[in-house]
Amino acid sequence: MTAYSAPTRDMQFVINEVAGLAEVAALPAFADQDVGPELAEAVLEEAAKLASGVLAPLNHPGDVQGVRLGPEGVIPADGFARAYQKFVDGGWNGIGCAIDHGGQGLPELLNTATQEMWNSANMSFALCPMLNGGAIEAINSVGSEAQKALYLPKMVSGEWTGTMNLTESQAGSDLSAVRARAVPEGDHYRIFGQKIFITWGEHNMTDNTIHLVLARTPDAPEGVRGISLFIVPKFLVNPDGSLGERNDVHAVSLEHKMGIHASPTCVMAFGDKDGAIGYLVGQENKGLAYMFIMMNEARFKVGLQGLAIGERAYQAALEYAKDRVQGRPVGVKSGDRVTIIHHPDVRRMLMTMKALNEAMRGLGYVVAKHLDLARYHPDPETRERHQNRVDLLIPIVKGWLSETGIDVASLGVQIHGGMGFIEETGTCQHLRDSRITTIYEGTTGIQAADLAGRKLNMDKGASMRALITEIGETVAELKPAPGEPIAIIRAGLQEAVAKLAEATDWMLETHSAEDVMAVSVDYLMLAGFVCGGWQLARAAHIASQKRKDDPEHVFYEAKTITACFYAEHILPKATGLCASIKHGGASIMALTEEQF
Amino acid sequence: MTAYSAPTRDMQFVINEVAGLAEVAALPAFADQDVGPELAEAVLEEAAKLASGVLAPLNHPGDVQGVRLGPEGVIPADGFARAYQKFVDGGWNGIGCAIDHGGQGLPELLNTATQEMWNSANMSFALCPMLNGGAIEAINSVGSEAQKALYLPKMVSGEWTGTMNLTESQAGSDLSAVRARAVPEGDHYRIFGQKIFITWGEHNMTDNTIHLVLARTPDAPEGVRGISLFIVPKFLVNPDGSLGERNDVHAVSLEHKMGIHASPTCVMAFGDKDGAIGYLVGQENKGLAYMFIMMNEARFKVGLQGLAIGERAYQAALEYAKDRVQGRPVGVKSGDRVTIIHHPDVRRMLMTMKALNEAMRGLGYVVAKHLDLARYHPDPETRERHQNRVDLLIPIVKGWLSETGIDVASLGVQIHGGMGFIEETGTCQHLRDSRITTIYEGTTGIQAADLAGRKLNMDKGASMRALITEIGETVAELKPAPGEPIAIIRAGLQEAVAKLAEATDWMLETHSAEDVMAVSVDYLMLAGFVCGGWQLARAAHIASQKRKDDPEHVFYEAKTITACFYAEHILPKATGLCASIKHGGASIMALTEEQF
Repeated sequence: MTAYSAPTRDMQFVINEVAGLAEVAALPAFADQDVGPELAEAVLEEAAKLASGVLAPLNHPGDVQGVRLGPEGVIPADGFARAYQKFVDGGWNGIGCAIDHGGQGLPELLNTATQEMWNSANMSFALCPMLNGGAIEAINSVGSEAQKALYLPKMVSGEWTGTMNLTESQAGSDLSAVRARAVPEGDHYRIFGQKIFITWGEHNMTDNTIHLVLARTPDAPEGVRGISLFIVPKFLVNPDGSLGERNDVHAVSLEHKMGIHASPTCVMAFGDKDGAIGYLVGQENKGLAYMFIMMNEARFKVGLQGLAIGERAYQAALEYAKDRVQGRPVGVKSGDRVTIIHHPDVRRMLMTMKALNEAMRGLGYVVAKHLDLARYHPDPETRERHQNRVDLLIPIVKGWLSETGIDVASLGVQIHGGMGFIEETGTCQHLRDSRITTIYEGTTGIQAADLAGRKLNMDKGASMRALITEIGETVAELKPAPGEPIAIIRAGLQEAVAKLAEATDWMLETHSAEDVMAVSVDYLMLAGFVCGGWQLARAAHIASQKRKDDPEHVFYEAKTITACFYAEHILPKATGLCASIKHGGASIMALTEEQF
Repeated sequence: MTAYSAPTRDMQFVINEVAGLAEVAALPAFADQDVGPELAEAVLEEAAKLASGVLAPLNHPGDVQGVRLGPEGVIPADGFARAYQKFVDGGWNGIGCAIDHGGQGLPELLNTATQEMWNSANMSFALCPMLNGGAIEAINSVGSEAQKALYLPKMVSGEWTGTMNLTESQAGSDLSAVRARAVPEGDHYRIFGQKIFITWGEHNMTDNTIHLVLARTPDAPEGVRGISLFIVPKFLVNPDGSLGERNDVHAVSLEHKMGIHASPTCVMAFGDKDGAIGYLVGQENKGLAYMFIMMNEARFKVGLQGLAIGERAYQAALEYAKDRVQGRPVGVKSGDRVTIIHHPDVRRMLMTMKALNEAMRGLGYVVAKHLDLARYHPDPETRERHQNRVDLLIPIVKGWLSETGIDVASLGVQIHGGMGFIEETGTCQHLRDSRITTIYEGTTGIQAADLAGRKLNMDKGASMRALITEIGETVAELKPAPGEPIAIIRAGLQEAVAKLAEATDWMLETHSAEDVMAVSVDYLMLAGFVCGGWQLARAAHIASQKRKDDPEHVFYEAKTITACFYAEHILPKATGLCASIKHGGASIMALTEEQF
C-alpha cells in the first residue's frame, strides 16, 4: 500500500496557467473574494493535508473491510465516519456551493482540484459527497424556495447527504422504463418501488439522507415524459428543520462488487409499509430533465475519477519503479543492477501514465473553467458559448477520462510485475475501483451516443467545429525553430486534429443512425485523445515561453518532453480511430443474431 | 454466473481448415494413429463434456472460496480434487505427451484446443496441469534416463504434478539474481532458499509434487551462467517408485491475489531444517537454458489463456446481450423494447470480442501446428524452419494474446453494464483472472524484449521477413471482384502488413538498444494484430471458396464478415503503432528521474 501525495504543483500550473484562473477571478461573482494563485495554493495545501493524511490511509483498509448491512442500517468501514466529520468540519463539502446556502462559493476550477484529491485518496469515500453534490445542484436549480431553505443548508454543510435514486432492475440506461410509483396524498406523495445500484443509499455517518427519486404519478404518460422527481428524506424534516419520523425507505441489501468496496451500493426499498413520503421537485413529468442536472454534474465528476485513479496509480507505480532493483541497463551484461525505472519499457509505461494523466487534468480543469464562465459570466451570449462548450465536452470528459483511467491503472499493475497482482500492494485496488467509472452515470456507449447524437447534431456540428478551429489556432501559435521539441508537438497535434476534423465531417454527413452509433465510441475516444493532446500542447507552449534561468526550468522542461511523448506515441492513435470511423457500421451490424 | 460451452465447431474449423490438421496427420510420428477430423471431433467432444460439465461449474465457487493453508498443507477449493481425479482418469493430462511415458502422443494442435477449454472453463484449475506440462517437458528433454523412468510416468498420468520454482523476491524478470543454494551431498544436493509466486506449489490433490528448482552450487559463477536445475520431490521417491520420506520443502504462505483465487500461489521454503534433497537435472550451470524449455511451453499456454478467457467472457456477454431488454432500436422512439444486442455499440463490442477471439485462436492453433512440425517432421531443415517460426511467434502469442485477452474480458464487463461490476454475475472474475496473464511467465515487456532483441536479431530479421512475405502471399491469394467483402479484407491486411514491414525495417536499422527496447511492446502488439488479421483473412479466403449451397453457408459467411470487421476496425491500429515505433525512444527516455 502506497501513500498519496497530492500533485499540488502540477494542479497549480494547470489551474493558473493552462485553464487560466485569472479569467475566472475577474468575474463579478468572485469580486468579493480574492480568487488568485495565493488562494488556490492555500486551498490545495489544506485539501492535500486531508486527502493524504486522513482519506488516503483509509483506502486500502476500507477495500479489505468493506461495508455491512446491520439491523440498524449500513455500517461504513472503520474510520470513515470520523473522516467524514473532518471533511465536513473543514468546510470541504460546500466549497463550490452558493454562499446563500452556507457554501464557500469558490470557482468550480478550484473545487475540481479538490475533487481530484478526494478521489485519488479514497474513491469509495469521495462518492458520498459526489452524489450529495448532484442532489444539491438539482434542488438548487429546480426546488421550491421552501425546499431550498429546508434541505440545502444541511446538505451543503454536509450534515446531511443526498443520493440519486434512478436505476431499477429493468431501467438502467433506459430510464423511460422506470416503474416506481408516486401516489398523491395531500401536499405530498407516497412513493412505492425498488431502486438498485444506489451509491451511499444508506449509512450512519450523518443524521439524515435526502434521496432524490424518479417515479411515476398515477396518470403520467408512458416513457420519459411521465417521470417526476421527488425528495424522499430518510427522516422526515419538520418545518423548523428538526427531524421527525423515520420514512418508509430502507436499504434491503448491498451488492458484492469488484471494487469500491467501502462505498455501499444499496438496493433501496420505498414503501414496504405505507409508502415513503415524498415531495415533488419542480413540476410533474419533468423529472428526466431535472435528473440530467444531477447527472451532468455527476458525469463530470466521474470523469475526474478517471484522472484521480490514474494519478494514484501513477504515484504507486513510480515509487515502485524508483525502488525495485531488477536487471541491468539494456545492453549491459555486468556491473550493478539498477532500479527498473532505468528500463526503457518501464519508462514507456510511466511516460504513458504521466502523459495521459496530465492530458486528463488539462482537459478536466479547462472544462471546469468553462463551467464557471457558463454559470457566472455577466454576458448571456458568453455564458451560452461556454455552456455549449461544456455540453460538448462533458461526454468526452466522462467517457475518455474514465476509459483512460482504467488503462492507466492497468499499466500501474503491470509496472509492479508479480507484486501488482497481490492485493496487499494496493495497486490492483486502483484497477478494480476504476473499472466502474466507464459504467455508472451512463456507460461509455451512452456518452458516445450523447456526443454523436445529441451534442453533434444540436447545432449541426458548429460547437465541435468551433473546438477544432480553436485547436488549429493552438497549432498555429506553436512556432518552433526546426529541430525544437515544439516542432514534434505541432506536427503531432496538427495531424491528429486533422483526423478529428475528417471524422467529424464524416459523422455529419448523411449516414444511417446505426452507422453513426456503431462508430460513436471511436469518435468519442478520438475527440478525447485530441483534446487531451491539445491541453498538453498548450502547456508546452506556456513552458516554451519561460526563460532558461526560470527557477522552475526543470518543471517546465518536463511539460515539453511530456507533450512530445504524447505527440509521438499517443496521438498516432488518431489515424486508426479516424479510419475505423469512416468504415461506418456495415461490418459491425452485418451478422445475424444466430451468427454470433 | 454463466455456463461455458466449448466452441467445438469453430475449433474444428481452425484445426482442420485454418491450421491444417492433415499436414500434421501425415507426419510419420502419427502413422499409427488415425489423426483426422473424426479423431479431432471425438477428442473435442469428450473434452468439452469435462470442461463444461465438471470444470466450469467450479470456476465461480472456487473464486469465492479460494484456497487455504492448513497445518497439513494447501487445501484446494471444494470439488477441485474430485475434478482433478476425473481429469486424470480421462487421460487428459498426457494427451500431448509421448506414448513411451504413458501419454497419448496426440499432436499439439489437438492438445492446444483442449488447453483452451480447460482454461476457459476454469483457469485456476488449468494452471495445475499447465505447470506440470512444463516440468514434464524439461525432464523429458534434459533429465537422465533414470529420472525419466522414475518421475515421468506418474507426472504424465497426472498421478503426480510438477511445478516450476524460479522466482525469488529479488529475482523476478532477472533470474541471474537467484540465490537459492544447492550443496552437494553424495549423489544428491541439499537445497536451501525461498521461492515465491509458485503456482500450485503445494496441494493435496495428488500423492506427490515434483518441484523443478533453480539454485546455485557452491562454486557456481555469478549471474545466469551459475544456475542449475534440480528435481526436488515433496516426498522422496524410492527406486521402485514408492514414496519415501517427506522432503524438507513446504509452502509457508499463500498470496492474496486479484484473481485466480482457486490457484494456490505459494511461498515455498526449501531447507528450513536439514536442506531439501534435490537431484541435478542435466549439467551443472545449465539451468537457465533448461528453464527456458519449461518457460517456452508455459509461455505458449499462457497466451492460450488470453484466448480462453476471451472466449469465456464473450460467451457470457453474448448471452447477456441476447437476454437483457433495454431501450428501443436506435432512431425509434416508441414500440417494443429490444434486447441490447440490437444496439450498435453493443454490437461493436461483441464483434470486437468475437473477432479478436477468432484471431487469437487462429494464431494460437497455427503456432501449435508449427510446434508439431518442428518436433516431428522427418526432415531436419523443415524442422528447423518450423522451429524458427515457433521461436519468432511464441513471444507474440504470449504477449499479444494475453494483452488482448484482458481487453476482451474488460469489454465483457462493459456489455453487462452495472451487472458487470457485481461479483455474482461472474464476468468481473474473468477480468480479474485475466490480469495475471501479461505478468507471469515473463511480462509483456519481457516478451517484447525477446522478440525485438533476441528473435529479430538471431537471423538479422530473416524469420520475420519470411513471415511478412508469407502474409503478403495471402494478400495476393485474395482475388476479390470489386465490392466483395474480400476486397475490404485484402486492403486492410495489405496496408497493415506494409506497416509491419516498415516497422521491422526500422527495428533492424541501426538504433540504440534503448531506442529499440522503448518501442518493443508497440512492435510486439503490431505484429500480433497483423498475425491475427492474417489468420482471419485466411479463414475468409477458405470461406469464400465454399459454395453458396454449402450446408454450413451461414457459418462460413460469418467468417468473412468477422474478417471484414477486423480489417475495418481493428487493423487500422497498425498505422498508429508503426508511427509510434518509428519515433523511437527519445521522448520516452528524456526525463530525468526527478522530473517524473
